[in-house]
Amino acid sequence: MIKEYIKDNQERILDELFSLIRIPSVSAQPEKHGADMIRCAERWKELLLMAGVDKAEVMPTNGNPVVYGEKIVDPKAKTVLIYGHYDVMPAEPFDLWKSEPFEPEVRDGHIWARGADDDKGQSFIQAKAFEYVTKNDLLRHNIKFILEGEEEVGSPSLSAFCSDHKELLKSDVILVSDTSMLSKDLPSLTTGLRGLAYWQIEVTGPNHDLHSGHFGGAVANPINVLCRMIADVTNADGKITIPHFYDDVEEVPAEERKMVAEIPFNLEAYKKSLDVEELFGEKGYSTIERNGFRPSFDVCGIWGGYQGEGSKTVIPSKAYAKLSCRLVPHQDHEKIGQLVADYFRKVAPKSVKVNIESLHGGQGYVCPIDLPAYKAAEKGFEKVFGRRPLAVRRGGSIPIIATFEKILGVKTILMGFGLESNSIHSPNENMPLDMFWNGIEAVINFHLEFDKQ
Amino acid sequence: MIKEYIKDNQERILDELFSLIRIPSVSAQPEKHGADMIRCAERWKELLLMAGVDKAEVMPTNGNPVVYGEKIVDPKAKTVLIYGHYDVMPAEPFDLWKSEPFEPEVRDGHIWARGADDDKGQSFIQAKAFEYVTKNDLLRHNIKFILEGEEEVGSPSLSAFCSDHKELLKSDVILVSDTSMLSKDLPSLTTGLRGLAYWQIEVTGPNHDLHSGHFGGAVANPINVLCRMIADVTNADGKITIPHFYDDVEEVPAEERKMVAEIPFNLEAYKKSLDVEELFGEKGYSTIERNGFRPSFDVCGIWGGYQGEGSKTVIPSKAYAKLSCRLVPHQDHEKIGQLVADYFRKVAPKSVKVNIESLHGGQGYVCPIDLPAYKAAEKGFEKVFGRRPLAVRRGGSIPIIATFEKILGVKTILMGFGLESNSIHSPNENMPLDMFWNGIEAVINFHLEFDKQ
Repeated sequence: MIKEYIKDNQERILDELFSLIRIPSVSAQPEKHGADMIRCAERWKELLLMAGVDKAEVMPTNGNPVVYGEKIVDPKAKTVLIYGHYDVMPAEPFDLWKSEPFEPEVRDGHIWARGADDDKGQSFIQAKAFEYVTKNDLLRHNIKFILEGEEEVGSPSLSAFCSDHKELLKSDVILVSDTSMLSKDLPSLTTGLRGLAYWQIEVTGPNHDLHSGHFGGAVANPINVLCRMIADVTNADGKITIPHFYDDVEEVPAEERKMVAEIPFNLEAYKKSLDVEELFGEKGYSTIERNGFRPSFDVCGIWGGYQGEGSKTVIPSKAYAKLSCRLVPHQDHEKIGQLVADYFRKVAPKSVKVNIESLHGGQGYVCPIDLPAYKAAEKGFEKVFGRRPLAVRRGGSIPIIATFEKILGVKTILMGFGLESNSIHSPNENMPLDMFWNGIEAVINFHLEFDKQ
Repeated sequence: MIKEYIKDNQERILDELFSLIRIPSVSAQPEKHGADMIRCAERWKELLLMAGVDKAEVMPTNGNPVVYGEKIVDPKAKTVLIYGHYDVMPAEPFDLWKSEPFEPEVRDGHIWARGADDDKGQSFIQAKAFEYVTKNDLLRHNIKFILEGEEEVGSPSLSAFCSDHKELLKSDVILVSDTSMLSKDLPSLTTGLRGLAYWQIEVTGPNHDLHSGHFGGAVANPINVLCRMIADVTNADGKITIPHFYDDVEEVPAEERKMVAEIPFNLEAYKKSLDVEELFGEKGYSTIERNGFRPSFDVCGIWGGYQGEGSKTVIPSKAYAKLSCRLVPHQDHEKIGQLVADYFRKVAPKSVKVNIESLHGGQGYVCPIDLPAYKAAEKGFEKVFGRRPLAVRRGGSIPIIATFEKILGVKTILMGFGLESNSIHSPNENMPLDMFWNGIEAVINFHLEFDKQ
């Protein structure tokens, strides 16, 4: 019956999803896409109403608006709050896309577009699962939706929104589809997320660009200095050298390391898919531990001096980088944010001026696997994917999950249907159609199971 | 009489120079400015004919054309070959210019424009000094002009042009105005130039941009790797660590170090003009030694990952940098070019792929101060600036000077009228008008003195 419903409504569901994707709601570029954020929120409101909520509204925040919707079947019943985000990452570099990022295309059984997975595709899975249970009168608990427009820039307004609307958002558990499974054949539920701290650093040398012949060798070059400072953050063993960085890091428990080792992982296939001859990471940890249980330091962007064609001989006045750390449970992003910023200010030589600014941050999260809602999610997955999903910690960050716990006092179940090959945050983001349809079915089963718990 | 001539023709001379400056002959951007190169060469031909050469022509090369002109007063007399270049550096970043880079403006006694000094302004000094001596029938030696359009990209076509036209370019000495004096009050002649080697490096990590949460800590980030490789090139003493880099470096002779120490140099004023608290350079050498007698390693540009507004959490697939070394006499740019490229290939970890390409190079140069033409230049400067110019080695590179010596067997006298405050290669390039007029007068005096030697 579920499969039939999906089949009968396939075309309409994709049309609805594509209407969302076509709105380039890039939260990191407010000057260019400010109006698109509003359009996208309004469209979500329409789609929630069409899916069957009793009411929906676009609510103001200090930043981009939040879309709220609810279906209250019984004020005394349990309530599931579904969270998603309607904003997407920038699509740059545009020239690497095979089809237009904001014009979804179905090709080789995938939807190709920015947001096809993260998070328009995934949150639409939730909307359509809800549509099924409510339209077929199967819903025995209340459902609330909250869709925000600032997840990709660190959700700066959502925690204030949550504090201001605790009653509205009151719920027993939160459901989120914004993570990925280990593989198509290996269903998994994410039980841990890394935190994030993100900075922009500006290094200023001389007060104007200099001729590298007349000044080269006599004046500190801000690019050279920035490279040195960045290089010094990591040592040859892949350890972060900033004093006290590891102070609060939870050592991976021996038992969990054993479980991790049981997750099927093909190192050669992983390297091949990235086309790298060798991996690099913290000595003494496996790849899955490195990107799930251990913190990291990455430069997400760097620029300075001449980047055009040919060879301009210049010592630039300024150099910039975007720096980020993934953090693990117990590492506080504000503490690390301060620690790293202070470190850069301290190690900067007097030949330059350093300005470092925190752009955003979020705490890590751990979900206990004995929660009733977690069990319902396990069963929902098992019905569709044929085996009990593995509980795994993932490297990504959804800062708001930790905020929900802190402000609303509610745990979140991460029912993600992405795959690593979906290239989220990259050119040619995509979502396999079978994962999309299976996702809807799994969430429907979650709702049915949840009422039995 | 010279001063009167200049005064009477002042407006016309500036109009002529401005007609050259208005043509944005940026050799590093052939796709954008290819046609401007031809227009600029044709304009120079007209201006040389107006200045009084017997004949002038725009001659093809493998790249941008060369402008050649000559005035033969007596086939048996000595010949002075005047070299200049009509191409200019890119004007980016445009937003830092106070007036349009290619619309010259006279403001506060300076000409402001890209090329006002380097080298349109300076080579026009030569053209107008020639105009004076020929129009007043004072010329007793032959004069040839050669103006190229690829100096700012390393003169890739000029050495073949010289080899093909040895007879045409036959001369006793070469005169170039493309360097600077120590200061307005301290006339100097450049007797040494540094060589140059310049590379672009591309570091490829994973085959596509990755989500820094899912992969951070487990995959080598090409920006982090590039920063490490760049940082390792220089140690804390400002020494270049690449093996054999210093093998051919001429140690500064003790006597010359003494002379250098006598050049008035105000360290505090220098730092203030750059707005830096401290300088950085090779331990054991003074600032003037560092930028004139010692080699250097500078990153002229770097880019990779996300450079836009906000915080995109990405591990980029690629990172790039433009690397350069200034070289000193006896260091061969081809040998160093190979040495450094090999070094980067060797130290690159297996977690990335490195592609490094030489963009250009040039040898250093030394001019003996007992050449008759050098003596004439000294006297020319002394008449106008009131004191004998100091002989100094400068940090810049004019690769073609070494090529002239090798192919044509002729020494070059570097009669430069620039000042460090002229901001060549930078936004707000300028030329003080008094330096421009004094330059013309000094070169006229050179011609008069040269006939007496």
